[in-house]
Amino acid sequence: MKKYIAESFGTFWLVLGGCGSAVLAAGVPDVGIGYLGVALAFGLTVLTMAFAIGHISGCHLNPAVSIGLMLGGRFDKKDLAPYIVAQLVGAVVAGGVLYVIASGNDAFSLDGGFASNGYGEHSPNGYSLLAGFVCEVVLTMMFLIVILGATDERAPAGLAPIAIGLCLTLIHLISIPVTNTSVNPARSTGVALFAGDWAIKQLWLFWVAPIIGAVLGALVYRVIGCKKEA
Amino acid sequence: MKKYIAESFGTFWLVLGGCGSAVLAAGVPDVGIGYLGVALAFGLTVLTMAFAIGHISGCHLNPAVSIGLMLGGRFDKKDLAPYIVAQLVGAVVAGGVLYVIASGNDAFSLDGGFASNGYGEHSPNGYSLLAGFVCEVVLTMMFLIVILGATDERAPAGLAPIAIGLCLTLIHLISIPVTNTSVNPARSTGVALFAGDWAIKQLWLFWVAPIIGAVLGALVYRVIGCKKEA
Amino acid sequence: MKKYIAESFGTFWLVLGGCGSAVLAAGVPDVGIGYLGVALAFGLTVLTMAFAIGHISGCHLNPAVSIGLMLGGRFDKKDLAPYIVAQLVGAVVAGGVLYVIASGNDAFSLDGGFASNGYGEHSPNGYSLLAGFVCEVVLTMMFLIVILGATDERAPAGLAPIAIGLCLTLIHLISIPVTNTSVNPARSTGVALFAGDWAIKQLWLFWVAPIIGAVLGALVYRVIGCKKEA
Amino acid sequence: MKKYIAESFGTFWLVLGGCGSAVLAAGVPDVGIGYLGVALAFGLTVLTMAFAIGHISGCHLNPAVSIGLMLGGRFDKKDLAPYIVAQLVGAVVAGGVLYVIASGNDAFSLDGGFASNGYGEHSPNGYSLLAGFVCEVVLTMMFLIVILGATDERAPAGLAPIAIGLCLTLIHLISIPVTNTSVNPARSTGVALFAGDWAIKQLWLFWVAPIIGAVLGALVYRVIGCKKEA
Repeated sequence: MKKYIAESFGTFWLVLGGCGSAVLAAGVPDVGIGYLGVALAFGLTVLTMAFAIGHISGCHLNPAVSIGLMLGGRFDKKDLAPYIVAQLVGAVVAGGVLYVIASGNDAFSLDGGFASNGYGEHSPNGYSLLAGFVCEVVLTMMFLIVILGATDERAPAGLAPIAIGLCLTLIHLISIPVTNTSVNPARSTGVALFAGDWAIKQLWLFWVAPIIGAVLGALVYRVIGCKKEA
Repeated sequence: MKKYIAESFGTFWLVLGGCGSAVLAAGVPDVGIGYLGVALAFGLTVLTMAFAIGHISGCHLNPAVSIGLMLGGRFDKKDLAPYIVAQLVGAVVAGGVLYVIASGNDAFSLDGGFASNGYGEHSPNGYSLLAGFVCEVVLTMMFLIVILGATDERAPAGLAPIAIGLCLTLIHLISIPVTNTSVNPARSTGVALFAGDWAIKQLWLFWVAPIIGAVLGALVYRVIGCKKEA
Repeated sequence: MKKYIAESFGTFWLVLGGCGSAVLAAGVPDVGIGYLGVALAFGLTVLTMAFAIGHISGCHLNPAVSIGLMLGGRFDKKDLAPYIVAQLVGAVVAGGVLYVIASGNDAFSLDGGFASNGYGEHSPNGYSLLAGFVCEVVLTMMFLIVILGATDERAPAGLAPIAIGLCLTLIHLISIPVTNTSVNPARSTGVALFAGDWAIKQLWLFWVAPIIGAVLGALVYRVIGCKKEA
Repeated sequence: MKKYIAESFGTFWLVLGGCGSAVLAAGVPDVGIGYLGVALAFGLTVLTMAFAIGHISGCHLNPAVSIGLMLGGRFDKKDLAPYIVAQLVGAVVAGGVLYVIASGNDAFSLDGGFASNGYGEHSPNGYSLLAGFVCEVVLTMMFLIVILGATDERAPAGLAPIAIGLCLTLIHLISIPVTNTSVNPARSTGVALFAGDWAIKQLWLFWVAPIIGAVLGALVYRVIGCKKEA
């Protein structure tokens, strides 16, 4: 049970920190943190939580990661459903807390998208569905390769939180303009439920593409990370 | 005695570095460091000091952290009062040194707030008292979870300074627009005494909310970090 | 074979992440990541991959690095040719995937250079061929010194990915305005093939200069890193 | 002899990377790296070199650091003079290489200051001599405390390069507007010789203040870092 609670708090932190920095701080004129600050924030939620709860739950914080780790032989499939539920609970609660904070500003409006992921006319900078799909699949695939590689017993011990957290930063540096970056169905769901409308209609992509990417990443690491011959 | 001096120097560094970067460098036109640079500076004061004096005093630099660590069973309560006094001394001296440096510029005025924390009309970007309260409570709670988790004996040894420092960066990336980010009563007090006026009138929130958050964080980690069943 | 595939995926990540952030996110008005974000992205591709595949292939991702490591006595020369081929394959595939994503935006045009390296009138900020040549030689030389030093058996174990990745970030912080920063012939080739025209005509410099620099770096480290007297 | 050459290359890197990023990349319109990027660059020169040559020379790269380490009992005084000479040689050569690169742009002029340190009318943002003096003394003092603390045998092994490098980043985040940040007489000298004029007239401050600061830092750490009672 403790590990499920840990996953909830961790995913809460990912959504509150990542989407919170986007909603509250990215667009402030002159001194705002921009996409670079949001990218850093998302990565640091994972980096900090991986150090804080990695020893409790493994710190997935992401249904696609849980699926990829299961396929990579690192995660017991009987825990998959409760992990995904815990992640979704944390993400939605984070969306709610962020709503309470953000709506304490008279200028706030959900019309800004509330950090939801989108494509086509709801892509932050006008990228098509195809571009968004390719982007989410490829980036989640690479994310899983980094996760599986950095937690391989042959990789330097204890440093995986840095590699994995900064990988999420990197993913955001590339793709915020395309889809606002998901690679994480829980993150997408946690804010889309509050944004409603188009964010919910487009939510399917941010379940399908990250999961496909995670499966591909697990398969690639099975090949390159195989220990035979090693 | 050495550990109290170390806490004073450490908190001096937190306030000089964090508030100093905000006062001196954040708003410079075109090349200023913005909220992102200030967030990085606050985090790096903790990261650097945790490596430098962690082995001397534990490097709390924050009354809320000392209280949370005490409740989490990591800090002896007889040291609590002297630690808080030492932290306040360091913070106020830092405010004074920063005042000397900043006032060496003809354009300087305390009317800019001197990096004080505030809510309502004194929130950097116009967030209400409720938004500020929720924000400070939740972020301090998460800060304590990361501190307690990253210094858990099961976490990777030696890397807690990175996790904790960058967690403070993350907290600032989210919340500078809301309250100018406290999560640390000593930091708030160190500059409010110089800014005077509203900064002192609003100072209570930045003692109350971080302490409530720290208590909650300690309680949460008692549940998820409990070693039974492990 | 696994190590060649790993090198391909790693170089794919370097080009997709580094050039992708440049093409997709650097120039977005107001909230774009700028040269700083691109510098961070390039460095993080190497940092993340060095943790993920360092134990599989050594994670060179760069023909100049492979040559420098060979001269430094750290890499078997029989693997040089297949490594360079694998790196080029990964880089070109990344160029293709980036093209698919980027062209999903109606405003996209290859006339922007597609993150290609250049000098003279194709230098991002108007630096001459000589400036570009000196810059690429010196920066690649220093890159190799850092790589050879940080992976020296006397250096702290396991942390080389951080040193090497952030060294690439540093190199970009200095030199994006000069040549768009190569120090890596595979990275230059992977996008030049798509940009065509001047990018291909100027490509020779980004093979010649990084390789000269890598040779010099290997020679310098032979002197300063020699273990006699140690 | 190898350690002197290593110090020269290391200080070369500090000046080329830090001042190079300032001269070449800080002020580019819209996408320039600003003070934040320069702060990161300075820090990363030290971080990368400390991993690369820490095991060869200790990686001081700074006469004030060498003096502080000598007073802190970590550095043999017979090596002080050759280290300072080596550092100055590296710094001046870096100034020369940077001049060659920068002057490959038609818009380049030494009138921009060539990243020299200054006070009063030559402070980047108009800070007085007193402000500059206090700032340089206090920041160098804290730098030495971090260096001595992070390399203390009780601190986490192997991570001092991260603490020390990022401490230099932090120092720049605070003080670029005040003096353009020295805390390092070699760095100041390396570019002032090329900038000439006021940069040479004001150079004395950037020898005097950092050395005073380093002495104070060594004294403070003697008190708080003393191992008796420990």
